[in-house]
Amino acid sequence: MDVKEVLCMNGGEGDNSYVQNSTYIQKVARKLKPLLENAVRAVVLEDSQSHGLLNIADLGCASGANTFFVIATVVDTVKSTCQELNRATPDLQIYLNDLVANDFNSLFKGLTRIQFQNENMSCFVMGAPGSFYGLLFPRNSMHFLHSCYCVHWLSQVPPGLTSEGGLPLNKGAICISKTSPPLVSKAYLSQFQKDLTLFLSCRSKEMTSEGRTVFILHGRSSEDPTGGEDFISWQHISKAISDLVSEGLIEEEKLDSFNVPYYTASKEEIIDIVEKEGSFTVELIETSIDHFVDEDMDNQSKARKIAKNFRCFSEPVLAYHFGNAIMDKLYDKIACNLTERLATKTCEQVSISVVLRRKATFTK
Amino acid sequence: MDVKEVLCMNGGEGDNSYVQNSTYIQKVARKLKPLLENAVRAVVLEDSQSHGLLNIADLGCASGANTFFVIATVVDTVKSTCQELNRATPDLQIYLNDLVANDFNSLFKGLTRIQFQNENMSCFVMGAPGSFYGLLFPRNSMHFLHSCYCVHWLSQVPPGLTSEGGLPLNKGAICISKTSPPLVSKAYLSQFQKDLTLFLSCRSKEMTSEGRTVFILHGRSSEDPTGGEDFISWQHISKAISDLVSEGLIEEEKLDSFNVPYYTASKEEIIDIVEKEGSFTVELIETSIDHFVDEDMDNQSKARKIAKNFRCFSEPVLAYHFGNAIMDKLYDKIACNLTERLATKTCEQVSISVVLRRKATFTK
Repeated sequence: MDVKEVLCMNGGEGDNSYVQNSTYIQKVARKLKPLLENAVRAVVLEDSQSHGLLNIADLGCASGANTFFVIATVVDTVKSTCQELNRATPDLQIYLNDLVANDFNSLFKGLTRIQFQNENMSCFVMGAPGSFYGLLFPRNSMHFLHSCYCVHWLSQVPPGLTSEGGLPLNKGAICISKTSPPLVSKAYLSQFQKDLTLFLSCRSKEMTSEGRTVFILHGRSSEDPTGGEDFISWQHISKAISDLVSEGLIEEEKLDSFNVPYYTASKEEIIDIVEKEGSFTVELIETSIDHFVDEDMDNQSKARKIAKNFRCFSEPVLAYHFGNAIMDKLYDKIACNLTERLATKTCEQVSISVVLRRKATFTK
Repeated sequence: MDVKEVLCMNGGEGDNSYVQNSTYIQKVARKLKPLLENAVRAVVLEDSQSHGLLNIADLGCASGANTFFVIATVVDTVKSTCQELNRATPDLQIYLNDLVANDFNSLFKGLTRIQFQNENMSCFVMGAPGSFYGLLFPRNSMHFLHSCYCVHWLSQVPPGLTSEGGLPLNKGAICISKTSPPLVSKAYLSQFQKDLTLFLSCRSKEMTSEGRTVFILHGRSSEDPTGGEDFISWQHISKAISDLVSEGLIEEEKLDSFNVPYYTASKEEIIDIVEKEGSFTVELIETSIDHFVDEDMDNQSKARKIAKNFRCFSEPVLAYHFGNAIMDKLYDKIACNLTERLATKTCEQVSISVVLRRKATFTK
């Protein structure tokens, strides 16, 4: 599977689309608004290089309301900071990045609903298709980079998940889970280290020295690579696939030959990678825990909503391997399992937010 | 009809898509390759402001092979000119612009088939959704702008095509045709003057002073606003709609209430507008005449192919007004009429190519 070609959120505006089912990420993004505002404010305050134009990017923007929320927050913060400083507002060039499989058509149609040009400020919105595990922008051109719920996606399924004899090491699971041997966790961590290092070195080349990179990703609170007691969506998807194998609806070989290119990191792992890569200073790193759905629903409705949320980000990758035909059954099974879980436990996911400042002294 | 929302080429890669049916425009674009190369070469030779980065845009790029042809030509010319001058190759940032209704998804997927990054040069390709009858890019940022077969599309249907009493002035036609009263031609010319002036003033704001704008558009060789003996696609589409009215398949009122936002200008009209707008010097303006299809086909096959070409650019706008249901019949009728025409006459369309240099002394 070439992740670059396959990975995307469910497109369009239908019942299973990312647009209709990304309220969890919206919730996380909205909660982190002050963090985003502070980082943008810092960029404007320290700016001496923009020459009246700030270049900003949302990396892994998908096609929904979150992107517009990010744009609106950035625009408002730049405006209000400049007013406060009694400084002319710069023009903004905002690049919306995602892989080519993303639904840019829906994204661009959504843009027309927003009014960007006004007397005091022009805002030019661009699409930037491609993988953020590579250079996306010219050197020294970007002032602020943002990425919400994307950097946990790896550039590839980690190599080394089969034995020398060709047997699957992660039998019965599609991600790091309680049954995975330590080699599996090691292979995943190693891939995440490589990918985040590459992400950072690309961003550092693209950024001006006062620039900030803010990213939020699905993480874990435990040192244990399986996440300990944390609620990790892929483990529940994995469990449901395994159930369908038991029911004879998916071949065991299909399950054993699939591993998802996704890693749930801890705060310490992220700090370690940023420090080793060396281009950025960690200005802030914090963990938050959020419910997937409103607490005032009954458990079955909650479970269905969470399964729909899972579907909007996991279906393209899973359908590519397991086929479209089994998808409805799979997400029904997930909803069914989650209803049971909700009788005794909650479904709260850990997110990690990181604000990085590009070191001024770093020579490229 | 809000042209910005409706106008696009037929998307996807199907039988009626722009991608499958834009060979005529490809032919025109390929013929004009030397003109494009010369203009790019001039930009590189005179460049003193790019600081290692050239910003280039294709305005109204649609989603097909033409765009990739333009990108490849620009990239090759920049490379070879720099080699010749023994100068480091700048990075390129290439913006692909079209209205939001354009199929950017297909466009971006096509990009992955091209390899842009190499050791000596990086090429960053971006999508820039929006109308070119407005600012698309920050001030003084663009070095080279290109637009192939787009500027004949007006920003709106010209006002003033109904009498004070509300009666349609252009009865029985959807564009300037032999039956149109002079008021209709005047209204169209006036809208084209406004639109091209706006196009030029936006481009002049966006461009650096050594920049070039190259555009190619459908034109006419005659002073007569109806095009005289020129083959004008919309007149044949108009005739076929009128035939379907006679056959009772389209209501007369539907025909009379529609006028296409498209103008076929003469060389003199274009020169006049450029001179009055004042930001650009005309470096070159030339007329070419091209057959729609290969001469070695039989007339019926030719006619079908031309009708398919018409369909890929005219269907979205026509379907919006006349409905999808009549489209197959309409293009069959066009093919049928063209087969008759081809018995005695050819189908060659006039194109006008314009190379403009942004005046260095122009103060913005």
